[in-house]
Amino acid sequence: MDKTEALRRLAAAHVGYLATAGPHIVPFVFVVEGRRILSMVDTKPKSTTELKRIRNIRTDPLVSVLVDHYESNWSRLWWVRVDGTARVVDEDFDHIAALLRAKYPQYADVDLTGPAIIVDIERIVGWESAPTVP
Amino acid sequence: MDKTEALRRLAAAHVGYLATAGPHIVPFVFVVEGRRILSMVDTKPKSTTELKRIRNIRTDPLVSVLVDHYESNWSRLWWVRVDGTARVVDEDFDHIAALLRAKYPQYADVDLTGPAIIVDIERIVGWESAPTVP
Repeated sequence: MDKTEALRRLAAAHVGYLATAGPHIVPFVFVVEGRRILSMVDTKPKSTTELKRIRNIRTDPLVSVLVDHYESNWSRLWWVRVDGTARVVDEDFDHIAALLRAKYPQYADVDLTGPAIIVDIERIVGWESAPTVP
Repeated sequence: MDKTEALRRLAAAHVGYLATAGPHIVPFVFVVEGRRILSMVDTKPKSTTELKRIRNIRTDPLVSVLVDHYESNWSRLWWVRVDGTARVVDEDFDHIAALLRAKYPQYADVDLTGPAIIVDIERIVGWESAPTVP
């Protein structure tokens, strides 16, 4: 899969998996703008206010993000992985909130209080299974 | 979500996400036996024979495994995460191969050449969104 297609599939995906140092892994929702992945902590119940993903990024900014398609037909699998550098943004995230609300109508009923996480995409790679020859 | 239910949902899931040091994240198929997650490198095309996940585990055995359910109705989300220690097994994996073939009929047509990866579950935590009050 070429990098343009990989970036397209990443941007179209509705859920991704964010791995931070530890390793620690969480599902998250996000938008892609240019070469950046933007997400925000919302007010869905969490175990702590200062989430572990936030603490991890403040300590070690290297992250990996995955989106994938799985089904029982293994000739139709694909995934896209990003290696990148993340930072936590504590203010001026109205722009990110607007992009998230445009992609996810579910956010209409959710406060987006931040902080935001911005991942600069440094490497993107996609894989898909070879289609079965009919 | 209590730990028994979290372990049940982990075992029933058909795809998971394995984060190793780096961080590095890949989708993978697996079986749960007792307090262990068992998987195996198969012959689906990969970028290298000595996969990065294998190299990472040999260097740093700490891993995190996630399974999740995502849908557009955000009152029905859930995920289960495991923190554990992984090891690479290069031989005597007939037992693991048999468990994988029993769970995944797709493996009937795939050689399971190994190596295997065994994750000892040290911590398991599950989360699910609060149902919307009707």
